[in-house]
Amino acid sequence: MEKKYLFSPGPTMLPPGVLLKMAEPIMHHREPEFEKIYAEIREGMKYLFQTKNEVLIFTSSGTGAMEGAVSNLLSKGDKAIVVRGGKFGERWGEICKAYGIEFIPIDVEWGKAVDPKRIQELVESDSSIRAVYTQASETSTGVKHPIQAIADLMKRYEDKVVVVDAITGIGVFDIPIDAWGLDVVISGSQKALMLPPGLSFVTLNDKAWKLVEKSTLPKYYFDFKKELKNTKKNQSSYTPAISLYVGLRETLRMIRTEGLEAVFHRHRTLAEATRRAVKALGLELYAPDSPSDAVTAVKIPAGIDGEKLKDLFFEKFGITVAEGQDRAKGKIIRIAHLGYYERLDMVMVISALEMLLKEMGYSFELGTGVKAAEEILMK
Amino acid sequence: MEKKYLFSPGPTMLPPGVLLKMAEPIMHHREPEFEKIYAEIREGMKYLFQTKNEVLIFTSSGTGAMEGAVSNLLSKGDKAIVVRGGKFGERWGEICKAYGIEFIPIDVEWGKAVDPKRIQELVESDSSIRAVYTQASETSTGVKHPIQAIADLMKRYEDKVVVVDAITGIGVFDIPIDAWGLDVVISGSQKALMLPPGLSFVTLNDKAWKLVEKSTLPKYYFDFKKELKNTKKNQSSYTPAISLYVGLRETLRMIRTEGLEAVFHRHRTLAEATRRAVKALGLELYAPDSPSDAVTAVKIPAGIDGEKLKDLFFEKFGITVAEGQDRAKGKIIRIAHLGYYERLDMVMVISALEMLLKEMGYSFELGTGVKAAEEILMK
Repeated sequence: MEKKYLFSPGPTMLPPGVLLKMAEPIMHHREPEFEKIYAEIREGMKYLFQTKNEVLIFTSSGTGAMEGAVSNLLSKGDKAIVVRGGKFGERWGEICKAYGIEFIPIDVEWGKAVDPKRIQELVESDSSIRAVYTQASETSTGVKHPIQAIADLMKRYEDKVVVVDAITGIGVFDIPIDAWGLDVVISGSQKALMLPPGLSFVTLNDKAWKLVEKSTLPKYYFDFKKELKNTKKNQSSYTPAISLYVGLRETLRMIRTEGLEAVFHRHRTLAEATRRAVKALGLELYAPDSPSDAVTAVKIPAGIDGEKLKDLFFEKFGITVAEGQDRAKGKIIRIAHLGYYERLDMVMVISALEMLLKEMGYSFELGTGVKAAEEILMK
Repeated sequence: MEKKYLFSPGPTMLPPGVLLKMAEPIMHHREPEFEKIYAEIREGMKYLFQTKNEVLIFTSSGTGAMEGAVSNLLSKGDKAIVVRGGKFGERWGEICKAYGIEFIPIDVEWGKAVDPKRIQELVESDSSIRAVYTQASETSTGVKHPIQAIADLMKRYEDKVVVVDAITGIGVFDIPIDAWGLDVVISGSQKALMLPPGLSFVTLNDKAWKLVEKSTLPKYYFDFKKELKNTKKNQSSYTPAISLYVGLRETLRMIRTEGLEAVFHRHRTLAEATRRAVKALGLELYAPDSPSDAVTAVKIPAGIDGEKLKDLFFEKFGITVAEGQDRAKGKIIRIAHLGYYERLDMVMVISALEMLLKEMGYSFELGTGVKAAEEILMK
């Protein structure tokens, strides 16, 4: 018998009821029924993003909204600061390069969070710097960056913005966008929003919209101004991924019913249980100082083959965990707990980890990890 | 009781079995199982597109691939010819404009096909012309453009390509890409491919790839070179709309089982039955000279309110037909018959049209349209 489980940081496990809702006969996106759905989605997104501003929706992976946050905000001659502490930080640099935008990288050791002071120094050093690009949660390392502190320092500038890829942040931990004064925040459907991949999201405040007004870089499909205009009419600029919007209404309802505070608390609990469990097994966290509640990156202990461990998860238990990417390949495994995950899901994956480590010759007492997790999960 | 029917040219009606397949628990796109699906899709797409070249897949609406066909093929200083005979022709011009590409429009009367001679004259007139952008089937007018003739004339040039938006062409009527020497052809998921919107497709021949090599316009998400490299590894550059790929394998299997010839014959029959029916009712076609088998545009007769007719289709019968867009608004309705449509579907929509026209005071004998359709459908 084959039973499968996703513990990867996107796609994540999906609620079966939502999958069935999306399997209903498709509707047309210019019918009033769809516009009603879109209107409800707009309200739900404002709740989820904790903002009074519209959240734009694009049919694309999260990378599409990231590209839009370069092509819509910047102009020829503008410079950017890019926080590079993992694979997704590097992506910001690649996008800037593609658009001929000179950027100053802040290379952060993988597994560490960025020091806002370094950003401050660089922002002061060059008046053509227009934007700081960072992650809220760097999915490749399991690190949470101090975006509130970055927002604080960027508030001093009228014409410089902070752009946050919160693809594994929104709906996982508290990111009060308006309260913190974050200028641009991005997310995607296949993470805490409990949907298949295919939608990206972005919200901008007034300061950011002013840059959009001036921007001279080319854009068409990811044109923020055009999309805002259509969003206000409960429409998308181009044919949207209709079935994902239908699902989005459902998962936004689930989130509203649970309540944002409870959603954050659940993720904190699942993450803390996972961290305690792996530490109880004698393993080390890859991001011990500033771990994200979205995904826990665990160092592979000496003598254990990381790639083989990941493969065995799938072969023996049908579990997909993520391996390390690029320079972290073979050095870590990443266990995700964002979205449609509850306490016993974590017990399963930790138990599987125990059984596999034991089989691979790693020395510890069976049950130690689960016990540590239970102590957190019981609270 | 509420029963709904889509006769709009995208989204189109979907096979329930495919919808249920897409509702299965989601899989991870880096697992071997997904790569196996992707490998099968690649073969199926080559069959459908009648090409030996790879067909790239992007998570976006068709417009995304259209943008990519400008940003990946052209360079600063290049010029383009844009065939503008409808809303989607106009889109080519908008994209060129967004990228600072000077284009020469060929404005074709809505409802008419472009004359290839006009293209030939213009191509000869300016050596910086690098590409001709056109539609195979202009969805907004129901016109089929003579793309074989355009391909023939473009073959003479080593460094100029024809780019065809065949979003409502591929899988509807015969477009033998390699045999005709079409350089770049685009399609999307929500048309003849019987899937929800969310995927766009593009295939390029060697001449087009040479332009891609030289192109200097910025691109990232829709980077054709990067996508080709990943496609060959059965991967996508960024997280793909996994559930749509799962559905795509299913609908490609359906198409292969039916066979391309039979698919084209079915569409030809449904389109011909629709055209005969509306003519039997005394109505006129909007594109009588070169109608597309994807969608039939019908002129609203004098004394009938076109907008009201469209609304009554939905209110009385749950049928979505498309109205005219922009300058054709209120003047036509469009009845689509591409994808998951069979003979009796057309009987339904024609019968509904008869009952509504009668109710609205249009003078004709009930049953005339259905009779004319049946005479074609029986063959």
